Amino acid sequence: MRKKRIAIDMDETICDSLIRHIEWYNHTFSAALTKEDTAGTRIYHVIPVEHVEVVRAHPHHPDFFRDLDVFDDAIDSIKILSEQYEIFFVTAAMEYPSSFQAKHDWLKKHFPFISELNFVFCGDKSIINADYLIDDTPKHLDGFDGEGLLFHAFHNMNAEGYQRVHSWTEILEKLRIDNESIR
Amino acid sequence: MRKKRIAIDMDETICDSLIRHIEWYNHTFSAALTKEDTAGTRIYHVIPVEHVEVVRAHPHHPDFFRDLDVFDDAIDSIKILSEQYEIFFVTAAMEYPSSFQAKHDWLKKHFPFISELNFVFCGDKSIINADYLIDDTPKHLDGFDGEGLLFHAFHNMNAEGYQRVHSWTEILEKLRIDNESIR
Repeated sequence: MRKKRIAIDMDETICDSLIRHIEWYNHTFSAALTKEDTAGTRIYHVIPVEHVEVVRAHPHHPDFFRDLDVFDDAIDSIKILSEQYEIFFVTAAMEYPSSFQAKHDWLKKHFPFISELNFVFCGDKSIINADYLIDDTPKHLDGFDGEGLLFHAFHNMNAEGYQRVHSWTEILEKLRIDNESIR
Repeated sequence: MRKKRIAIDMDETICDSLIRHIEWYNHTFSAALTKEDTAGTRIYHVIPVEHVEVVRAHPHHPDFFRDLDVFDDAIDSIKILSEQYEIFFVTAAMEYPSSFQAKHDWLKKHFPFISELNFVFCGDKSIINADYLIDDTPKHLDGFDGEGLLFHAFHNMNAEGYQRVHSWTEILEKLRIDNESIR
């Protein structure tokens, strides 16, 4: 029997792109924005309107996605899950073509135990054929045919109707149990 | 009802990467290789073994996939199909990370009527959730859950057990009829 397959998003699911947004914003505008200021929404909606264009350009910089921090326990948990499941990393990179190389390098660096043949750069994630999708963006889960897990983030804290997960240890525990129960 | 979805490969399905291989090979080694010389196999197997390493490096050059010729009737046929189907372009780019930008630019140039959110750069195409996959590489069709169409190419001419298509006009005719019959 084919192993079940988990598709895992990158930004704000395994890597901290929000803090990069905030650092670049604060640096550019000598501001003191915090993650908490973005609760329930996206950074674009909590900054002065005249700053939005600059901030929307930031992720188009080839280095924006470089050297992002990995979320706590993501590497160890995914390593354990990779023994029982097929793991794919699936990121909506097509909106930021200049990010391809940095995203590829980041995955190779932090997840050397996952083949690069299991990396997917796409836009519309409804194209993904997997049993689970772990993602912080509700719209990606909406179009997904399998079981979606919403990775908790400041911007999605008010989204309802999703199976929410808060950490990689919680995901590890849940998916190990799911896997035991189908044996 | 959701439109049926066609996933379309790039190299040797809509663009002529074989002729690029041959041009670069002939230029590098002052040779006179032709497409016909590669019948039934890949270029790597019909050249002297001491040339293989250089030829394997060619697709890693950032310009290798730039300005490739589009296959006859591909643009017009896919434009017509896009009215009845969702079209995704799906290319195994992960083996050639330096090709990302050229492949993205090529699709944007020749298929401006398909959203870049429908471009997928991956490795293992069994991750693709679509009704049809049109591809010249048998192994990609083997792992695909939907209906696979093998796009005829010199290298795959001896592959058996696949639904083979020879041109974009043939694909257009076949898929238009399939779509009529399910209405």
